[in-house]
Formats: sequence, structure tokens, C-alpha cells
Amino acid sequence: MISKQQIKTIHSLRLKKFRDESNLFLGEGPKVVKELLQSFSCTFLAATPSWIDANRHILPPGINCIAISADDLGRASLMDAPQQVLAIFNKKPSQLPSAHAMQSELCLALDTIQDPGNLGTIIRLARWFGIDHIVCSPETADIYSPKTVQATMGALGKVNVAYTPLPQWLCSLPGDIPIYGTFLNGSNIYEATLTPNGIIVMGNEGRGISPQVADCISHRLYIPPYPLGQPDIESLNVGIATAITCAEFRRRLSAAHQ
Amino acid sequence: MISKQQIKTIHSLRLKKFRDESNLFLGEGPKVVKELLQSFSCTFLAATPSWIDANRHILPPGINCIAISADDLGRASLMDAPQQVLAIFNKKPSQLPSAHAMQSELCLALDTIQDPGNLGTIIRLARWFGIDHIVCSPETADIYSPKTVQATMGALGKVNVAYTPLPQWLCSLPGDIPIYGTFLNGSNIYEATLTPNGIIVMGNEGRGISPQVADCISHRLYIPPYPLGQPDIESLNVGIATAITCAEFRRRLSAAHQ
Repeated sequence: MISKQQIKTIHSLRLKKFRDESNLFLGEGPKVVKELLQSFSCTFLAATPSWIDANRHILPPGINCIAISADDLGRASLMDAPQQVLAIFNKKPSQLPSAHAMQSELCLALDTIQDPGNLGTIIRLARWFGIDHIVCSPETADIYSPKTVQATMGALGKVNVAYTPLPQWLCSLPGDIPIYGTFLNGSNIYEATLTPNGIIVMGNEGRGISPQVADCISHRLYIPPYPLGQPDIESLNVGIATAITCAEFRRRLSAAHQ
Repeated sequence: MISKQQIKTIHSLRLKKFRDESNLFLGEGPKVVKELLQSFSCTFLAATPSWIDANRHILPPGINCIAISADDLGRASLMDAPQQVLAIFNKKPSQLPSAHAMQSELCLALDTIQDPGNLGTIIRLARWFGIDHIVCSPETADIYSPKTVQATMGALGKVNVAYTPLPQWLCSLPGDIPIYGTFLNGSNIYEATLTPNGIIVMGNEGRGISPQVADCISHRLYIPPYPLGQPDIESLNVGIATAITCAEFRRRLSAAHQ
């Protein structure tokens, strides 16, 4: 049986203020909870008896775990369609990638991605493409927002996400690290030289990359529409643009290794 | 001044039942409304006085247009952050693409895409990649759901979307039309032969492509993660997978034309 106080705590995690004060966040659903249990310490877990029976082997020893009815899960959950299990986790400290990481790997920088779902989708695809570090402007959505956590599908624990003012950070990097960004007047990504390392900057949903960040970018790229030059289309969703960009960097790198 | 009855009508369009009965749907925000006005007949438009002043030239003659306060817009809107304007439009009849279209063009088929945001994102990227036809299984989300309309960013009027049972439809097509689908055991898309025409089938968010539809697929593709064969990743969001697949088809076609 879940208490009113426990439900109140869960619902408070909808708000960044309470997540920051408590250093906690919420994950829901079998896939997300299973993934998060591998990377974060869990302070509370509530699930249907059948989920608990089937998943005892993945529960850490000493976990605060309670069985609840589907009705109670519905009352506690923040989702439209609650899914068997929800759990509260401790947030983890984050840190900026080292200059060495960026000299050898590809990293993402997000310039004020405001939609929590877009942020979660980007974290999920970063994991798919083996990108270990994402650096966000302070105005980017919170990675621990429930919508972001759900959209990552559990990839949150596998990608290191840090927040810092981007112009200052980008300007402080060694000059040999390529900094890519997508712009409407950039070079066709399929014809541009792409390196196996560096930073890919993605811009805000409505305004794109801010002028201060644009000043730091060394390589301006463009994802061509089809047919090329079609005039009545303005943009792609930022998650989609990130995916196409990362896929092309990885396709080139894989082809170079063959 | 907006009436209680008008607000009630707007709010009813959240539900498919009322959209179907009235043959109407809602669009919100400057970009979406501006695009929809080009493709759909508008039965009602409410906007802030400043939006109306700046956009008189795009309003069709005789349109039922009222100026409202930001407060009233907030009461009428279905969005978390209402944006200057909302409008009600007549839905349009849809039709399946002809066999001729599929013999010369690329089309998308969606096998039960349930999330309205994913559906809208796919319609938007289809437009970017010059794909004019999308065929959806009957269980796919409704293209006129408010979340879908917003996610299309107005591309709804430029892409023809029809609903039909996919196995029967795919089986009825001439045998020379290639039918592609993405599977975990498919061929690496970057090494596969891709044609400028045919159908790309995308599957459900959780279950992928259904067995009945899979039986109709002639070319099984796979988007490789990086590094290849990384074991702890399960999948990409369906909008992301659609984007990477369409981008690769279009990249090949553009390269072939050079």
C-alpha cells in the first residue's frame, strides 16, 4: 500500500524546484526503470506484484520496494498510461568532458533545447551513436524532467550530460577541436569534410543556434532537403536534425574503417 | 470576444469522436496557422489584435475572424503556451497513392504509430524529403489530433495521408514495387541497394513492424549503431529511425544525379 506522503513526493518530482531540493528524480515503466537501476541508486520503487515477481533478480539488495495495485499505480504515476512500475532515483553529479575526450571523440552541445521530449530523444540517439558526452546551455530543459527521462528510454545513465554557458566553454577549448553546427546557409553535410572527433552544436527549436554560440563554430553544415532547394520548407525538428547529422558522421567513420 | 460555445467547440476538437462528427480540426500558433491557411478551408480564426494587424494579407476573404485578448486565447487554447492565434479548419478527404506514384516515387507506410507527436514529426520530415504520400494502418494516431497537427509545423496540408489495413494493401500492389522495412536483423542500410521509388514501412513504437506486414516486405534494412554491434542498446525512436532512413534514400538519389 502506497502512502499519501509517498504519492505527494512522486508528484512533486514533476517540478525542477523539488527535484533540485531533494536531488531525486522519477522513472516509470519496465524498460526505463530496468535501465535506470543499472546506473542510479534507487530510493523507492513501487510496482504491481507481477512485475516484482518477474524482476526480483534485478532489484538491488535492501531496496525500498512496495507492491501496489494498478489503481494505486494510476494515482501515483505522472504518465497518461501507467506501466507496472515507477521508481525514485538519486541524481548523479555531472562533469564537462575533458579536452582530451573532444580531441578523440564526438560530443554534442545543445544550445537551449527547450522541449523535454526533444532532449530525451537526443540523449537516446546519442547513446545509439556511441556519443558519451552532451553539454547543454543552462536554458536547456532539465534531463531529470519526467518527460525527458521517459523519452531517453533509459539511456540517461549511459550518457554524461553537463550544463554550462556554451559561448564561454566553446571559446575556452583548444583551437584544434572542430566545432560543427547546422545552419540554413551551411555547407551540404554530404559534401563536407567530417572528422571523427569534435563537437556538434544543435540549436533551439524556434531560433536555432544563438549568435554568441554561432561565433564559436568553425564548420557550418546544412542538411539538404529533397529535391534540393525546395523553397516552401523551413526546418526539421531538432531531434530529427541531430539524428541525421550524427548518422552521417558515424557513416563516414565506419566507411573509413573498412 | 470569444463565446463560451466557441470555446466549447475548440475544446471538443481534442477528441477524435468530435473531429470525425464535425469534420473539423484545430491548428494553433503563427507558423502552423499560416501554413494550414494555404491548404485547408478555415471556418473560424481567433487571434490577438496585433497578429491580425500583421497578417491581414494572408486571411481569406469572408473568413470568420475575431480578435481576442491573451487571457481569452489562454482559455480557448489547447496548448501549454498559447501563441497569438488559433483556427478551426475543415478536414480534407484523403486517397491512397496510385500504383503509378509508387512506381516512380518514394512513399511511407506507418504500421500503427501510436504517439501523435511521432506521427506529426514523421509528416514534417516527409515533407522535407519530398515524400508526398503516407499510408497508415487504421490503428495509427489521427493526423488531425492537436498534438499531431502541432508537430507537423504546418506540413499537414502538403503531404497526402490515407488510412487503410496495410497487409491487404501491400499485397495488392504490383510485384515490381520494392517494399522496405527496418528490422533488427535487416541489412546495413549503408550497404544495401536503395531504389528511388517504393514504400518504406515503419513499425510501432514498442512492437516494431507486425508479422502480417513483415510478410509483405521485400527488403529488410537495419540502421547500424556506432560502434557496430554495441549490445546494450535496443532501439531508436520511430521518428528518428524514419528520418535516418529517408535521409539515406535521398542522399543516394542525389549522389546518383550528380
